[in-house]
Amino acid sequence: MTNSVSLSQTLKTLQQRNNQCLINWLTKQPFSEQTLLKAMKHGTLLGGKRARPYLTYVTGEMLGVDYDDLDTAAAAVECIHAYSLIHDDLPAMDNDALRRGQPTCHIAFDEAMAILAGDALQTLAFEIIAQGRLSPEGHQQRIAMVSELAQASGAAGMCLGQALDLEAEGQHVGLEQLELIHKHKTGALIRCAVRLGALAAGEKGRQILPQLDKYADAIGLAFQVQDDILDVISDTETLGKPQGSDLELDKSTYPALLGLEGAQQKAQQLYQEALQALAAIPYNTYQLEVFARYVIERNN
Amino acid sequence: MTNSVSLSQTLKTLQQRNNQCLINWLTKQPFSEQTLLKAMKHGTLLGGKRARPYLTYVTGEMLGVDYDDLDTAAAAVECIHAYSLIHDDLPAMDNDALRRGQPTCHIAFDEAMAILAGDALQTLAFEIIAQGRLSPEGHQQRIAMVSELAQASGAAGMCLGQALDLEAEGQHVGLEQLELIHKHKTGALIRCAVRLGALAAGEKGRQILPQLDKYADAIGLAFQVQDDILDVISDTETLGKPQGSDLELDKSTYPALLGLEGAQQKAQQLYQEALQALAAIPYNTYQLEVFARYVIERNN
Repeated sequence: MTNSVSLSQTLKTLQQRNNQCLINWLTKQPFSEQTLLKAMKHGTLLGGKRARPYLTYVTGEMLGVDYDDLDTAAAAVECIHAYSLIHDDLPAMDNDALRRGQPTCHIAFDEAMAILAGDALQTLAFEIIAQGRLSPEGHQQRIAMVSELAQASGAAGMCLGQALDLEAEGQHVGLEQLELIHKHKTGALIRCAVRLGALAAGEKGRQILPQLDKYADAIGLAFQVQDDILDVISDTETLGKPQGSDLELDKSTYPALLGLEGAQQKAQQLYQEALQALAAIPYNTYQLEVFARYVIERNN
Repeated sequence: MTNSVSLSQTLKTLQQRNNQCLINWLTKQPFSEQTLLKAMKHGTLLGGKRARPYLTYVTGEMLGVDYDDLDTAAAAVECIHAYSLIHDDLPAMDNDALRRGQPTCHIAFDEAMAILAGDALQTLAFEIIAQGRLSPEGHQQRIAMVSELAQASGAAGMCLGQALDLEAEGQHVGLEQLELIHKHKTGALIRCAVRLGALAAGEKGRQILPQLDKYADAIGLAFQVQDDILDVISDTETLGKPQGSDLELDKSTYPALLGLEGAQQKAQQLYQEALQALAAIPYNTYQLEVFARYVIERNN
């Protein structure tokens, strides 16, 4: 109980911090009153848990990095996430009209503007890494971050996962294939968020990347398993998007493959894997532990 | 005549060189047999003049940089261009079925895959800058290039231009607004291509950026003026896309605003501006001159 209060406070603090960074980046653009910028703000600032920025901040903090030196990576990773949601919601993709209880970008604006807003948010992520504040380690660190972000979000990461997911619609997909899809579609960026926090700490962070990857892979997949569970057991109001939408799209899900109870066991097992990975890290992993529990206990 | 033969040879050589670089980057991706990668290859490798890579190569060459050290920037800028064409052709945008005489990406694959292929090509551009071969100047140069590419293609560059262009459809647009649109929509990336070639030369290149910007701005706009002219006077087969498609979309064009002859004069005037900018550069600007002439004399 104490943990969960403390998590929600930390989440809220970091959410606000991340929002302020994103607002700063978006409003300092030279054409900040244009429709394109409004669409980018809509897709970025209207809610969202900020799970990825949270992971960047607490991983960096664990390694002694100031929040000030983590703002850049946290903002960049959230821009990638926001762009992916805007494109994911498009009629040609998931065709969702509602996200976080708000009209999706192509509903609030139009399809063309939503495509462009997503495109420009992806670009902004890289602009932020190139130009945002970072600790003195400087250029080398930035390049490592550009590389991480590109690998996590491109044709070997998130976009690949999306493509595999689309191709799997209406097909019978086994557990292994489902895991491959989610490892890329959502897992790659979650792993990247953790890695960016570690990279901001320099060599110290690079030394524990293998353990952090294990942790991130476990919670990344747990995140998806829990999403699938919530799509079955929750209601539209709590979710902020239509309940049962996976079913409607004939998407393979963990409850469909393992049954509801099996999916819940899977989430528990991934939680234990995450804790084991953290046990091998010689720093205070408290916030990462708390977050792992949140992932499998959250109700939206 | 001699110039034009020599240009076509250089263009072809650099086109092939750039294609080979892009093939290497695309085939070394870990899931290179997936549909996503096929769609990315389709959007990148089926033809195209490679005007932007050409500009990067000849600008760098003028300043003494080896082609080997320009491959990275040239490949990255072409990935951005290719992604923009894929998204530009989408039904929600220009709804084009034909590009370079081939079915556009969403026709050859489907709309969702075309969105993702564009997304992943943008990512690849930044991956290439982060990981591709560059001369010893290294990390600092890479970061300057990420920054250039992001500014040229994002919410203050190409994407903004696209958004302004979409908003202008069916509206009466004056000459000033039309110039603002094209300065961003096509001009920003052409300017970036030239700047990347200069940045690869280090300080030497940075010193002549103001002159290069003037040159690039002039030919960037001339490129668009000539495109508009060709849309009126050429035929579909030569263009590789439907003739008269601007008219059909009720787009503002230079011939519409200035008349055909006025537009041709405008192109000539921009050509002269480009030559004047080059005259202030203390290096052998021959290839840039030849290219400026090509821009206003080309027929496709």
